[in-house]
Amino acid sequence: MAMDVISVIRTKRDRGPLSDEQIDWVIDAYTRGEVADEQMSALAMAILLNGMDRREIARWTAAMIASGERMDFSALSRPTADKHSTGGVGDKITLPLAPLVAACGAAVPQLSGRGLGHTGGTLDKLESIPGWRALLSNEEMLDVLDSTGAVICAAGDGLAPADKKLYALRDVTGTVEAIPLIASSIMSKKIAEGTGSLVLDVKVGSGAFMKTMEDARELASTMVGLGTDQGVTTVALLTDMATPLGLTAGNALEIRESVRVLAGGGPSDVVELTLALAREMLDAAGLKDADPAKALADGSAMDVWRRMIRAQGGDPDAALPTSKEQHVVKAPSSGVLTRLDAYDIGVAAWRLGAGRARKEDPVQAAAGIELHAKPGDGVTAGQPLLTLHTDTPDRFEYALDAVRDAYDIAAPGTHFTAPPVVLERIA
Amino acid sequence: MAMDVISVIRTKRDRGPLSDEQIDWVIDAYTRGEVADEQMSALAMAILLNGMDRREIARWTAAMIASGERMDFSALSRPTADKHSTGGVGDKITLPLAPLVAACGAAVPQLSGRGLGHTGGTLDKLESIPGWRALLSNEEMLDVLDSTGAVICAAGDGLAPADKKLYALRDVTGTVEAIPLIASSIMSKKIAEGTGSLVLDVKVGSGAFMKTMEDARELASTMVGLGTDQGVTTVALLTDMATPLGLTAGNALEIRESVRVLAGGGPSDVVELTLALAREMLDAAGLKDADPAKALADGSAMDVWRRMIRAQGGDPDAALPTSKEQHVVKAPSSGVLTRLDAYDIGVAAWRLGAGRARKEDPVQAAAGIELHAKPGDGVTAGQPLLTLHTDTPDRFEYALDAVRDAYDIAAPGTHFTAPPVVLERIA
Repeated sequence: MAMDVISVIRTKRDRGPLSDEQIDWVIDAYTRGEVADEQMSALAMAILLNGMDRREIARWTAAMIASGERMDFSALSRPTADKHSTGGVGDKITLPLAPLVAACGAAVPQLSGRGLGHTGGTLDKLESIPGWRALLSNEEMLDVLDSTGAVICAAGDGLAPADKKLYALRDVTGTVEAIPLIASSIMSKKIAEGTGSLVLDVKVGSGAFMKTMEDARELASTMVGLGTDQGVTTVALLTDMATPLGLTAGNALEIRESVRVLAGGGPSDVVELTLALAREMLDAAGLKDADPAKALADGSAMDVWRRMIRAQGGDPDAALPTSKEQHVVKAPSSGVLTRLDAYDIGVAAWRLGAGRARKEDPVQAAAGIELHAKPGDGVTAGQPLLTLHTDTPDRFEYALDAVRDAYDIAAPGTHFTAPPVVLERIA
Repeated sequence: MAMDVISVIRTKRDRGPLSDEQIDWVIDAYTRGEVADEQMSALAMAILLNGMDRREIARWTAAMIASGERMDFSALSRPTADKHSTGGVGDKITLPLAPLVAACGAAVPQLSGRGLGHTGGTLDKLESIPGWRALLSNEEMLDVLDSTGAVICAAGDGLAPADKKLYALRDVTGTVEAIPLIASSIMSKKIAEGTGSLVLDVKVGSGAFMKTMEDARELASTMVGLGTDQGVTTVALLTDMATPLGLTAGNALEIRESVRVLAGGGPSDVVELTLALAREMLDAAGLKDADPAKALADGSAMDVWRRMIRAQGGDPDAALPTSKEQHVVKAPSSGVLTRLDAYDIGVAAWRLGAGRARKEDPVQAAAGIELHAKPGDGVTAGQPLLTLHTDTPDRFEYALDAVRDAYDIAAPGTHFTAPPVVLERIA
């Protein structure tokens, strides 16, 4: 008898493990369109509720890799180092990090995505630079990587097509939040990209998909196991996403902040996380003597950034778009800021036009939010707390709804210590 | 904010109860096509795995009824009595039962289905009678019911369209076996049909959807609760489906056996269950003094059958189709037959051509299986045990595969008592 999809769905529905043959068949048949969306979504829900063991997740990941082409960076003279973030608010780290690690001697291929929901997308941010192009052929990508040391571009359609199809399906069927499916989705893309080492930035907190340390640990160790089993040196950092990263959330706003970091300045949490991830990437790539702090200070990371932007058609000196309208949210009382909620800020930035509701929607380059204080800072009644930016001021009210309960101000003199940026390391 | 399907899916996925508003909205939006099949199948899997409470099931049923029209039999001079079986192998009971109960004074509207999987469909069986038509307009249906007392026909498209769409979806997504969805599917159709009383024949055993008494009890009491809450007098009998009913499984084969029962003969288990269900239906309809055994014996049930078949274009005297090829399975040893598996016999009959793999497939009128012994009977080595019928003899081998382990023969003289036909009553 041929394999049939209902018996595969029933196996997982009834809490059994899927066999290797069932996994290989269902991923291939779904990619070919023989298994229908409504069948795969029922299976995805059964996986979300009943789980998969380590063997199943590894096989599922391998089957998604096998659904498409694999890239090969072995012809490059430098070791490759790759990084993936599970997504957060104000998470612009890829922007300073890729040129920084390249300046230290690694090759950094960053195949990135667009924002969906309350988290921004690296490609959306870079597209606020006049002329910059996200879409490169595989050959162009290798050229930019070889000549500048780093490239940030859209993943080609040929990589893990099963994952592309399944990801879009999960997004509309309430089946995103399944650790086996999140882990296999991320790792199938990263392994198909052919990197030699990988550092995972697993976000934890209100602005992340993983809200608890337990879930984040499970996701991180699942992904580290998958990478290690496939011969990719893989390390994960669990990092805080209860508060937005840095002082901006939005596309052009985050590019400006990233350039400040590359110029040796910028917010301390962004600098700290960029350096922590850079050290992990350089270690994993075997470049243990590199000094990323020096590469930020001496301008060599900025040099790579400028070459990389230019190689993809962008003008690193062009003026970035600015918003047509601003609205300032003022501190209602004096005291100490003890909470600034990442999720609320992300939703507000999204509502201002920085993100999209559907894949096909455009984003506003200049929309977003500037933060004028971070948890631990003292504030004075009436001082600016947030500046909201948009080109479409009718969105202010809807965005203000989202930030109404986004912050807490405690009595002046309250002792408060912000949590560390890096919470845990899993290798 | 408008209702959105992902929040509905997430509610059930995260083990919460669906609100009345969520249920009303999702059933209506699915019927209109605003909620996609892949979204409803994810929700159906979440319901299967996380359940629904009594309020949710009642609301879900009411929403499916509200998706279409309701019939009204209140203009009839007789009380209506309806019966539903959850489906089994050799389950031809509707055929003698409907005319029998009509002969005793009730009006019996039997909106029936076609077979899918290993269980046969009442309409497929009746279509083996030359000229008989399953499709009637509502007006024709009421005419037949009024003039003969009974009608067996296809349900119109206007009744519970949400259920029709959802039923077809569940069939291809491994989400059939969810008690809340089975109960609401059956009861939404039955309540929309407008009957005043309902007797449920809930099958238990290998040949049924419910394999255990626990599951069958839960399904039965859920349905009895739903009917009672909607003002329909509802009773359920749990009946054995470890063994096929009667001595035939197949379309024309079962019509022949049913006519034998109406003529006062036929296999004892079919007669016993027909009478038990008839008594329940007559009681529920308020006709407590009727005597169904007498109506079988004196030919009045047969008279209604002949009028009912004729009213729908059929010729009750026409010769029924006979199979082109037969294959006899002989008893391999002498002894006592202790098991004849309903599921295996159902699958074999289906493989011989009595059932269909897809909704659009035709069925063979003459295909099926005759049983020459039932559990408890003594058999002699070499005597016929089963006769397989088909018009396409290349199917014999595939059907024989299914019956290879379908029976057990114990040593001669072994004491064996077959289980009762009716196992339990739930009201």
